[in-house]
Amino acid sequence: MSSSFGTLFRVSTYGESHCKAVGVVIDGCPSGFELTESDIQGQLDRRRPGQSTLSTDRQEDDQVTILSGTENGKTLGTPIALQVANKDQRPQDYGSMKNIPRPSHADYTYTLKYGIRASSGGGRSSARETIGTVASGAVALKILKKKCNIDIIAWVSSVGEIDSTPPDGNIITREMVDTTIVRCPDREAAMKMEQLVGELKEQGDSVGGVISCIIRNVPGGLGEPTFEKMEAKLAQAMLAIPATKGFEIGSGFAGSRLRGSLHNDPFTQKEGRLGTVTNRSGGVQGGISNGEPITLRIAFKPPATISLPQKTVDFSGKDVVLEAKGRHDPCVVPRAVPIVEGMAALVILDMLLRQEARKVLQQSW
Amino acid sequence: MSSSFGTLFRVSTYGESHCKAVGVVIDGCPSGFELTESDIQGQLDRRRPGQSTLSTDRQEDDQVTILSGTENGKTLGTPIALQVANKDQRPQDYGSMKNIPRPSHADYTYTLKYGIRASSGGGRSSARETIGTVASGAVALKILKKKCNIDIIAWVSSVGEIDSTPPDGNIITREMVDTTIVRCPDREAAMKMEQLVGELKEQGDSVGGVISCIIRNVPGGLGEPTFEKMEAKLAQAMLAIPATKGFEIGSGFAGSRLRGSLHNDPFTQKEGRLGTVTNRSGGVQGGISNGEPITLRIAFKPPATISLPQKTVDFSGKDVVLEAKGRHDPCVVPRAVPIVEGMAALVILDMLLRQEARKVLQQSW
Amino acid sequence: MSSSFGTLFRVSTYGESHCKAVGVVIDGCPSGFELTESDIQGQLDRRRPGQSTLSTDRQEDDQVTILSGTENGKTLGTPIALQVANKDQRPQDYGSMKNIPRPSHADYTYTLKYGIRASSGGGRSSARETIGTVASGAVALKILKKKCNIDIIAWVSSVGEIDSTPPDGNIITREMVDTTIVRCPDREAAMKMEQLVGELKEQGDSVGGVISCIIRNVPGGLGEPTFEKMEAKLAQAMLAIPATKGFEIGSGFAGSRLRGSLHNDPFTQKEGRLGTVTNRSGGVQGGISNGEPITLRIAFKPPATISLPQKTVDFSGKDVVLEAKGRHDPCVVPRAVPIVEGMAALVILDMLLRQEARKVLQQSW
Amino acid sequence: MSSSFGTLFRVSTYGESHCKAVGVVIDGCPSGFELTESDIQGQLDRRRPGQSTLSTDRQEDDQVTILSGTENGKTLGTPIALQVANKDQRPQDYGSMKNIPRPSHADYTYTLKYGIRASSGGGRSSARETIGTVASGAVALKILKKKCNIDIIAWVSSVGEIDSTPPDGNIITREMVDTTIVRCPDREAAMKMEQLVGELKEQGDSVGGVISCIIRNVPGGLGEPTFEKMEAKLAQAMLAIPATKGFEIGSGFAGSRLRGSLHNDPFTQKEGRLGTVTNRSGGVQGGISNGEPITLRIAFKPPATISLPQKTVDFSGKDVVLEAKGRHDPCVVPRAVPIVEGMAALVILDMLLRQEARKVLQQSW
Repeated sequence: MSSSFGTLFRVSTYGESHCKAVGVVIDGCPSGFELTESDIQGQLDRRRPGQSTLSTDRQEDDQVTILSGTENGKTLGTPIALQVANKDQRPQDYGSMKNIPRPSHADYTYTLKYGIRASSGGGRSSARETIGTVASGAVALKILKKKCNIDIIAWVSSVGEIDSTPPDGNIITREMVDTTIVRCPDREAAMKMEQLVGELKEQGDSVGGVISCIIRNVPGGLGEPTFEKMEAKLAQAMLAIPATKGFEIGSGFAGSRLRGSLHNDPFTQKEGRLGTVTNRSGGVQGGISNGEPITLRIAFKPPATISLPQKTVDFSGKDVVLEAKGRHDPCVVPRAVPIVEGMAALVILDMLLRQEARKVLQQSW
Repeated sequence: MSSSFGTLFRVSTYGESHCKAVGVVIDGCPSGFELTESDIQGQLDRRRPGQSTLSTDRQEDDQVTILSGTENGKTLGTPIALQVANKDQRPQDYGSMKNIPRPSHADYTYTLKYGIRASSGGGRSSARETIGTVASGAVALKILKKKCNIDIIAWVSSVGEIDSTPPDGNIITREMVDTTIVRCPDREAAMKMEQLVGELKEQGDSVGGVISCIIRNVPGGLGEPTFEKMEAKLAQAMLAIPATKGFEIGSGFAGSRLRGSLHNDPFTQKEGRLGTVTNRSGGVQGGISNGEPITLRIAFKPPATISLPQKTVDFSGKDVVLEAKGRHDPCVVPRAVPIVEGMAALVILDMLLRQEARKVLQQSW
Repeated sequence: MSSSFGTLFRVSTYGESHCKAVGVVIDGCPSGFELTESDIQGQLDRRRPGQSTLSTDRQEDDQVTILSGTENGKTLGTPIALQVANKDQRPQDYGSMKNIPRPSHADYTYTLKYGIRASSGGGRSSARETIGTVASGAVALKILKKKCNIDIIAWVSSVGEIDSTPPDGNIITREMVDTTIVRCPDREAAMKMEQLVGELKEQGDSVGGVISCIIRNVPGGLGEPTFEKMEAKLAQAMLAIPATKGFEIGSGFAGSRLRGSLHNDPFTQKEGRLGTVTNRSGGVQGGISNGEPITLRIAFKPPATISLPQKTVDFSGKDVVLEAKGRHDPCVVPRAVPIVEGMAALVILDMLLRQEARKVLQQSW
Repeated sequence: MSSSFGTLFRVSTYGESHCKAVGVVIDGCPSGFELTESDIQGQLDRRRPGQSTLSTDRQEDDQVTILSGTENGKTLGTPIALQVANKDQRPQDYGSMKNIPRPSHADYTYTLKYGIRASSGGGRSSARETIGTVASGAVALKILKKKCNIDIIAWVSSVGEIDSTPPDGNIITREMVDTTIVRCPDREAAMKMEQLVGELKEQGDSVGGVISCIIRNVPGGLGEPTFEKMEAKLAQAMLAIPATKGFEIGSGFAGSRLRGSLHNDPFTQKEGRLGTVTNRSGGVQGGISNGEPITLRIAFKPPATISLPQKTVDFSGKDVVLEAKGRHDPCVVPRAVPIVEGMAALVILDMLLRQEARKVLQQSW
């Protein structure tokens, strides 16, 4: 069940790098909703490898097919199976590394866990596994937009030590994010990031980064205390993305350094509801959305697979120097932007459905 | 189901500030295990209010009773119900704030969500709700120690802007942590922290902080990709603790600034297994434990309830100045240490049981 | 998690015969709903032992206490903990049987499963475990009645070989059922049943029976294909009651003997909806309610604990003759009536909440 | 989540009659286990339409493909996706019935539930949905046989009013069952059944039947009280099969008519364990397997779709006479035999994994 996520809008993903297909089954998608492959393909295109000179050369067009759950372009309410074929399989690239677990990679732990290793190494730790999240996340994004006008926009806010000026969260759009290939809306910082990533690619090194995400127009009341608080499920979702090491909501770690008198968000009257003057809470209080934008930051480590020589040991414990072959991203954050958006959408839609279910009975006593 | 957590070792908590009792039911606890109230009381004592001059004056002795699931001091394999009575209930303290949602507190969002408000304000957002986590976590801690010699030790690493020197993670003990009432093992920093918290208490202000946690002797192979990776469930667990705003595993946000060649943890031969020379991964790779210590940092915001006057609005949107009454902690991190340990224990034990179930069939083909 | 049931309205039970208390935590109960102990006590009284000369002499008044989740007589939306103390504990009654597993009882299987045995024998197989179901079921019954005018009425339709004439399902009430102590509304059959049970009690023997149940005014559309079809969850719920051996919905086994042309329920126009002329389907088609009454039959075996001598073996395999001591019911069906009603209510309410959640989004495209 | 089943060995199915493919994803399958399509195809062939003159003329070869989760013929421990293409789609067959809900069919309830109707009528109520159960069940059957020598054998025990002599449960094999096309091992009864079904097919009528199932060599201790007792999960699984109306374990409804002194199964010493002299319990006591064979009976109603004229109303409530077109089975029980076996295997394997997880910790205190 660990490849499933969600309670009422529940997704189950499958597939690794070198099998026939990767995909996802969505259980609990509302019926009567217009849905075709074109609603999904856009986010997959933003995730796929080979889309710019900055990412891996692995070429996959990653065309999605809806296998079930729709008819005449509308959802039936039954499970929606989405699938993407694996075309560009080159397991031979990994042959030389067969006996050497890559440092900081899942090669070793997958072997520990399952007692067997996929030829590609880390099996489901592969970035291809995220296709299911992005595809089902695209469905959730469309529903959230259409039903509640909810926007979920992520962007790259830092690469290595290059920080960027934050955009205006109220107006940032996916189009603005995509104006740079590194997906950082601060063009000046983006240029430096692109240069750095290009250099590291040439050197055979890699670098980490941070993705920021804003979720606008979330109605108040979403989030399920106590173990499924809004921030708890968002944290789980984000830390389930490969290569993530940190999560912040609202003021995050910086907020821990402040006094309450400076950190608290005073209430104020907004159109038809209470709002807050500041938003250090990041849109949640007590695990429940308060109607303000939800703001997140997610830390990604540098990709583990580098072609620079590394002194390590093989599976038998013998000293070796590893020079990894294969096609790898020097920096994952530009391609991880739609993954973050997808994960956020899966969480928000599930929370929305759960709260709506609650409200139906509540209002009627 | 959002008040339940875990798959094979599953806890369900109940209770708010001003009801008759708070508690937890543990489903799936292995049988034949020695368990009495005294195994649990110690961690509850570390959590309870009024244990030092730094925390709230609310007095609760928080004595736990085992209602079911054991006989003659041994677990039966059936659900274990643990209960703590609420003795010191003073709902009247909140009367004057009835019409004013406290800034950055759950008063407002609980009302949005449930359409009703407990007299105490945020209902289950109260710190008393964490008793269930600490009590069931104490059971998990004992099992993990006895079965696998796993140690889970948390401590306060910063309060406000006061940082501390990290202890040696390999040897830190709960006793060392408890040598200072602020639960920071760096005595010099601890003294400053205590002074600051004392001042803020007097001023009616509050401050945030960071808790660090190390989990030693975790066997490799624990964690359930892809949505229940070790770090994903730990992140969910920690962000389910009231007042948390951030989570890091291993190198965290700092790791996002590094290059792969500097960040990767090379493998080396350790006694009977592969280990890593460094531990920027924080004990997990690809969502699965690698046998190295798991290292976490959790950010807590300053408590929302302060007695300094705050300009805000009441539920009707009218401008007011709030001066909160009631007994509140100026800084929650010292009391949150056993909560972090409990949450970590719930995650690790559940993962351990799931992996053991897998291994039984694996080894037998 | 096997002591929990339900998805949105989820109950978790705990407790065995000889511990301090038995109880249940309800997670997901809608807020703002009037609820006090008196709403629950009635069904517990119908379940408790010692209520008539036909049942066990064990005396328990089984007073329920609401520990959390309500304030001023209204639900808060937070977990509701219900508890009943165990007062009349006499583990010594079981002493003489300590080394002999009772035939057809759970003594042996509990030992196999948990490697330990409660002094009372079968631990959670005890009828006291059903208190949690009845108490939480009473809450669900009240919500269903108030929200949708749904009635759930069960009665004893046979005891041993004594069958009864079925009542008119459209008008049968709980009061009509309770006019006889055996809870069979056919007074003539009831008299024979009471006589038989009385005789068997004297002889130290026991007898099985069948409970029928009708669920009226269920809206169409409830039930979650494919693994949680209405009949699938009802079957699970009923077979989770101790001593059950069979389940039927609608035509049941008799329906398997018919031809389609005789079995099909033709549609007809009813007030504001389509209905069916006959109801061999028992209110469900394709796992989903169709608006007609849901009709069930549940088979209970004779209680395993009898005081007549039985030739069997002890735990070591040695031949023995067992003459069980202790207080036991010669026939469980009269007391099982509220358990069946409670289980049905838990299923229907959970299905209702899930369908309402679905409809909210459905209607809005 | 209602299209998923199981806790540790969890299957998620998708697909309806007229979409591109039907399939199932298995999450939690142990790794290192030999698995190829040929292990699965046999049970699918027993389920597929058109295999004999008795069943629907719909022709589907139902070839299964393993899309993920295996490499070099061994399972990786990652999700296993199994898929069968839908080839013979003829939605036009249903055109004339578009406005008329078939009596006792899911046409009407699916419309109520989802507010939309698949062109084929009842969407996931179609028998094609069971492909996922049979395919994943075949994997479970292989694991159970290899790991524990567990046999699960189902057969047709009655068709309409034609009953058969029960086979010797200790020796019955799948090959013996398949000696008759109606899958009844009593050849004399089978001949009558075949004749009846042939006649009804010609008449455009249908008939119900009963499938019996025996599960041999189940270790004691499986089943998870209280809501997931062995019989509770088996009942849920069986009632989730389309067209089922009843379930019995062991003595079933007949057992409810007996006295305890006649019904109880005395214990006796068997090789290395306690066994029972008789098996009215059907292999379970208190919801837990006792080591004796588990015996089940499942009632199937006559298929709802018949071509005989039926007086009913259309969706608008207008009187019509329906003469259904399309290809339909006059009797589903012969093809349902592998579905029953698959469902049973899913339950038993999940219970086995859960108990093994429990035992690992139990034995080590």
